[in-house]
Amino acid sequence: MARLIGGDLSRLRQLNALSAIRALRESGPLTLSALADRTGLSRPSTKEVTDELVALGWVEEVPPSPGTMGRPARRYRFRAENGYLAGVDIGGHNVRVAVADLDGRILAEAKRPVPPETPLEERLSAIEHAVSMCLDLGGIAMADLWTIAVGTTGTLRPDGSIAYSVAIPSWTGLDLGARLRAMFPCEVLVENDSRLAALGESRRGAARGASDVVFLHLGLGMGAGLIIGGRVHQGFGGAAGEIVVLPEARWLEATEHLNTCAVVPPGTPLEHAAGHTLAAARSGDPVALEAVERYTDDVAIGAAALALILDPQIIVLGGGFSRSADVLLPPLRERLERRCIRMPALAASDLGDECVVIGAIDYAAEHLESRLFTPDAGALPLPR
Amino acid sequence: MARLIGGDLSRLRQLNALSAIRALRESGPLTLSALADRTGLSRPSTKEVTDELVALGWVEEVPPSPGTMGRPARRYRFRAENGYLAGVDIGGHNVRVAVADLDGRILAEAKRPVPPETPLEERLSAIEHAVSMCLDLGGIAMADLWTIAVGTTGTLRPDGSIAYSVAIPSWTGLDLGARLRAMFPCEVLVENDSRLAALGESRRGAARGASDVVFLHLGLGMGAGLIIGGRVHQGFGGAAGEIVVLPEARWLEATEHLNTCAVVPPGTPLEHAAGHTLAAARSGDPVALEAVERYTDDVAIGAAALALILDPQIIVLGGGFSRSADVLLPPLRERLERRCIRMPALAASDLGDECVVIGAIDYAAEHLESRLFTPDAGALPLPR
Repeated sequence: MARLIGGDLSRLRQLNALSAIRALRESGPLTLSALADRTGLSRPSTKEVTDELVALGWVEEVPPSPGTMGRPARRYRFRAENGYLAGVDIGGHNVRVAVADLDGRILAEAKRPVPPETPLEERLSAIEHAVSMCLDLGGIAMADLWTIAVGTTGTLRPDGSIAYSVAIPSWTGLDLGARLRAMFPCEVLVENDSRLAALGESRRGAARGASDVVFLHLGLGMGAGLIIGGRVHQGFGGAAGEIVVLPEARWLEATEHLNTCAVVPPGTPLEHAAGHTLAAARSGDPVALEAVERYTDDVAIGAAALALILDPQIIVLGGGFSRSADVLLPPLRERLERRCIRMPALAASDLGDECVVIGAIDYAAEHLESRLFTPDAGALPLPR
Repeated sequence: MARLIGGDLSRLRQLNALSAIRALRESGPLTLSALADRTGLSRPSTKEVTDELVALGWVEEVPPSPGTMGRPARRYRFRAENGYLAGVDIGGHNVRVAVADLDGRILAEAKRPVPPETPLEERLSAIEHAVSMCLDLGGIAMADLWTIAVGTTGTLRPDGSIAYSVAIPSWTGLDLGARLRAMFPCEVLVENDSRLAALGESRRGAARGASDVVFLHLGLGMGAGLIIGGRVHQGFGGAAGEIVVLPEARWLEATEHLNTCAVVPPGTPLEHAAGHTLAAARSGDPVALEAVERYTDDVAIGAAALALILDPQIIVLGGGFSRSADVLLPPLRERLERRCIRMPALAASDLGDECVVIGAIDYAAEHLESRLFTPDAGALPLPR
């Protein structure tokens, strides 16, 4: 059983404990010497803080690596199974859920379709049900869930309410954070889906290791998520990344070039139209290729505005159309190279359809540290 | 005499010393109790670290406040006069210099005109001369100058060389950092002028207290400087803020509306043309007002791209035209309100023509902390 650290240690010891937990979460099991190296603490302080963390249940000794000769040095690990995190991606057509341990290791995933026209209460029930099913799948009790991080489409206010959503009309004006907090007995974080996708790609996807990242969501809707200095950039009022609303950036109607191309069979539902155009372009159809050229003409304006303003290390293409990155990347690269002062790296999403849900897990896992030392024990459910 | 801290203290003591110096620099003189409160250190650790800093010459006891009754508690201050900083603003038409103590308190300022067509070596000599004159004015020896921070026009590379400059043609391709390092026996920092202006406004100007700030430079040239999370945002390759090069953002030719207005007397030199238009608009001349409308139409596109992408707390209008902020702010505000999801605060520069040079001082003063603990004593000139 782990106890809250906040009330038990002095401020300096708390900082040392946080350094030790951070090092163990980043590196996996470490000997005391390696932990002292990683934290910069003296060997005696490292021993002291480790003993305290073991007594509190946050850290435990692990068996020596098999095959170790002689008397092996003790190694310690962070007990990531003290609690669990859920990531939820609420899109226009689907709800995805993943559950993970406190290190963000994913233990189960679930997905269910929820069409855009689904009434509000029915959508909220579907979310609750998907989270329950995913916890069952992972063999995790709801009471052991510490944090749910939700990524959803739309412009969010800093309090987790939704100012505006095109993809889910019933979302506009909803205090989603409050509704989810009433539904789940744990901490709830709400973020824009493109921002969480950007975080996921920067932590374990195409932008791994980069601290300045632009995630472009290319699909029926368009959006951007920003990582600046290694962190999600929300903006002062939570409205960062919304270049799509500037008509001169030409994102608003870019998708029309793909949706209305002559190669799309009559009667095709809107959500499948662009897929036909992109497939035909891949086969070399000149009409479809022309539509892709016009589409990337438009996408490149907003993308260049992002690149010129932020000078990111990398732009990651995600969203439904990024499955056709082979078709889209070359013309987009050519247009950006013409417009940028310094051309960023340009790559397709590694995490694909899971980028939001994985980013949500990473968001919850990184948020954890800020809560480990909260003096208010009620704020952090203690694992049983 | 102050000695370098790096070699003298263990890492934990260095961190404690840095906390103490930071608190004293932020708050001015503090008693040991107040310093313990500010740093979170225990009272004995605070005493110990303060004694060490006094012995090293970084901190000194100050006389009690006049009128204090009874036995007053000892108070300590950071010895900001241990060294000096210079800020330099190299613009197309002038060189400005300010010198300050290590806390950034400005002690002297100097300015001299250097026209754009000045040959390179002559411009560099003028800079050297202006710095010398300003040091003389402040009664400071060159040997006591620790850092020179330079803000200049143009797109900079991270190494301090200039990729491109419109305003000073001979600047393009110059390794300005290397030239200045050969000229001055101290640390030299080079940054884009709009970024330093943004920093100055965020530290002691119109954006004081804001951590996400856009500085718009409105003048013959246009530019933007970004503060994100309280720090200058340079971008991965040092090219952040360059929205001006995107034709669709309409900044490139915005100034033409003011320069070519019918109210400008024939034969007016280009650098004074817009001033006539802005003055006529202030008097209500309808032709000039129309030119101002067209100018702000264009400025608003790039400004809206910045606001929509970053969602800053405040946009500060600086540069030569910001003297006419009374004429420019209302139409610009009206256009931005139409385009932004969340309208940021909008204000004219407080620091005016001195924003770059003051921002340069702030940049040098904030850079200082990162150098206090450098183990290489040669890197930090010791005050005599």
